[in-house]
Amino acid sequence: MKLFTYFRSTAAYRVRIALNLKGLPAELLPVNLVEKKHTEAAYTDLNPQGLVPALMLESGEVMNQSMSILEYLDEQYPLPPLLPTGPLERAEVRSFAYEIACDMHPLNNLRVLKYLENDLGVGAQDKQTWYEHWIATGFTALEQRLELRKPPQQGSFCFGNTATIADCLLIPQVYNALRFNCDMQPYPLINAINEHCLSLNAFEAARPENQADA
Amino acid sequence: MKLFTYFRSTAAYRVRIALNLKGLPAELLPVNLVEKKHTEAAYTDLNPQGLVPALMLESGEVMNQSMSILEYLDEQYPLPPLLPTGPLERAEVRSFAYEIACDMHPLNNLRVLKYLENDLGVGAQDKQTWYEHWIATGFTALEQRLELRKPPQQGSFCFGNTATIADCLLIPQVYNALRFNCDMQPYPLINAINEHCLSLNAFEAARPENQADA
Repeated sequence: MKLFTYFRSTAAYRVRIALNLKGLPAELLPVNLVEKKHTEAAYTDLNPQGLVPALMLESGEVMNQSMSILEYLDEQYPLPPLLPTGPLERAEVRSFAYEIACDMHPLNNLRVLKYLENDLGVGAQDKQTWYEHWIATGFTALEQRLELRKPPQQGSFCFGNTATIADCLLIPQVYNALRFNCDMQPYPLINAINEHCLSLNAFEAARPENQADA
Repeated sequence: MKLFTYFRSTAAYRVRIALNLKGLPAELLPVNLVEKKHTEAAYTDLNPQGLVPALMLESGEVMNQSMSILEYLDEQYPLPPLLPTGPLERAEVRSFAYEIACDMHPLNNLRVLKYLENDLGVGAQDKQTWYEHWIATGFTALEQRLELRKPPQQGSFCFGNTATIADCLLIPQVYNALRFNCDMQPYPLINAINEHCLSLNAFEAARPENQADA
């Protein structure tokens, strides 16, 4: 498999973690977002949406959207599982992931920050406040969710003692928050999970600073 | 089951469609977003994120995030299926849905428009341009995806002749675009799917204007 990636893309970071957790080898092909390589035909012919990541299978088929890729990997390569087996537990893990994928990340990604700056003339301080606002709104709700966990969901990962797609989403989002100097002090449970995950090879190897294109 | 809903919430609209397609009866409990009922403890005690929709099961368990609820309903009530069986086809349908759920809807929902207006002082015309920008960016990519479909994916729905979660996401997003007077002329395939779906009872009954709280 080949993963079209960019070292700082949190959506690509999610997939890098999942591939590592599954022990799946993939060739990483950097798409430089700053040089706008994602808008060039060489890439948009493969992924019309022009965002990273995209996964090319051995068959040559290309799929986009990190959440789709995570679900695909878990269906095709079930071990170790990234979703629990119980229907309610699956919904809980997915909801945690979607709160990041749908309600945090999209508001703070590069194209939106550029729109605020270039099209709406939003200044640096207001842009920072915008960024921090969506991080705080999202992480406050997620920290509260983590506080409400009961055994066996309490553990070193978001849900118990096994990594799930929730962790694949959380760790890159924390990276983003720290990169933009957001205050992470109000979220001790998130911080503990982040620290634990980054002590593991699968997460460590996926870190932006450990990518060839960093 | 009980669905916490708001007639104009596109995320709730998605779930209303899915419940109807599955033939699942659910009590609809309106949460008035304009009156900020979603921020009151009566609701946030059930759903800490404070967004609609949320689904309360017979057991009293509550799940949030429309995409989680759709996956749950499809896992627990498999007929009629809202996802195809082939792994690649499942990824395609999910990616179509996520392009709306992650990259269109979150940028144009009420809380974001309010932030632009109240916190960033963005004027009415610039807010409208922002809205139209993300609609056009998203629908252009989706229309292109629909053009690239081959049989048996070509049909009266997004993917073939069976409704999937892609349709559950698309129809509410078209509703939103029309509500904000976006130009839909460039998207003939999307418009045809929208017209077909709205001719069906499951979609018709889920329409915002047909809700008790409208």
